[in-house]
Amino acid sequence: MKKMSVTAGTPVVSEDEAALATPFVKCLVRLVRAQDTYGSQDRASDAELLAHFIITEEQRRKIPIIGDPGPDVMFRFNIFYTAAALSIEARTGLVASPITMVSHEGFGRVLLTTGRLVVFSKTVRDVHRFGFATLRKLAEAGAKLVDGAIAAIEAYPEVARA
Amino acid sequence: MKKMSVTAGTPVVSEDEAALATPFVKCLVRLVRAQDTYGSQDRASDAELLAHFIITEEQRRKIPIIGDPGPDVMFRFNIFYTAAALSIEARTGLVASPITMVSHEGFGRVLLTTGRLVVFSKTVRDVHRFGFATLRKLAEAGAKLVDGAIAAIEAYPEVARA
Repeated sequence: MKKMSVTAGTPVVSEDEAALATPFVKCLVRLVRAQDTYGSQDRASDAELLAHFIITEEQRRKIPIIGDPGPDVMFRFNIFYTAAALSIEARTGLVASPITMVSHEGFGRVLLTTGRLVVFSKTVRDVHRFGFATLRKLAEAGAKLVDGAIAAIEAYPEVARA
Repeated sequence: MKKMSVTAGTPVVSEDEAALATPFVKCLVRLVRAQDTYGSQDRASDAELLAHFIITEEQRRKIPIIGDPGPDVMFRFNIFYTAAALSIEARTGLVASPITMVSHEGFGRVLLTTGRLVVFSKTVRDVHRFGFATLRKLAEAGAKLVDGAIAAIEAYPEVARA
């Protein structure tokens, strides 16, 4: 699963490093470390910790979408949106709450709310295959979500504080 | 489970009849009938259909809150909030979406949203014991929820349509 280029200094490595330095990805890494209760991944690098979030298109196609999404993918799915909520709070000072509803078929909804405002809403499917092609795409998806939520809070500040 | 007074015309019966005539309870009955795919309850009265929603304080205390809430109680829990969403839509013309997240311990959150507005938000616990002491209390809880949601829509009409 781990994505690593063979030689140091290639574009992929610097791209990964740039992604790991973004506030959203830093927050996600902190959350993953916090969940590692027994410290079994204490020596893992940030990139290693996030390795399971990275799924190439080829790997993606091989994941069956039959039955329930497993606990590991549900963990990653939920922690991704928790990281988004914490990033929103860090930038606005307003508590954002994630609520995810995933059916047994891997189909569902995700909402992030602040006060009475829905700052993010998405219908998801094939949660079994939740992941991103590269660390950069993960970082971009997180940043886009957080930016969109903050734009909504700026548009309706009163409702976000209601 | 079924609550019925021994003689007709007693206050309990008329109270039940009044509850069954409210728009929220009528909507709930319609939904329960719609879910009865095989028509096994076609001959049941409205009060009989809702019998499992009625849990006296004594019955309530006897329900264990260990393990997952069973599928029957989850069905009633979800259909109650779906009835609320449909009642809001009937009165405002705006689609309201319920999203419920219940953990294995019967602890969770319920949100109803309209556009970008959270019209109802509740933290729930002991979902295993979801129910109401009387039909009147069921009707009152539903009406209160719907009235509160409509007040929120009236307070932030722009957000409810965003």
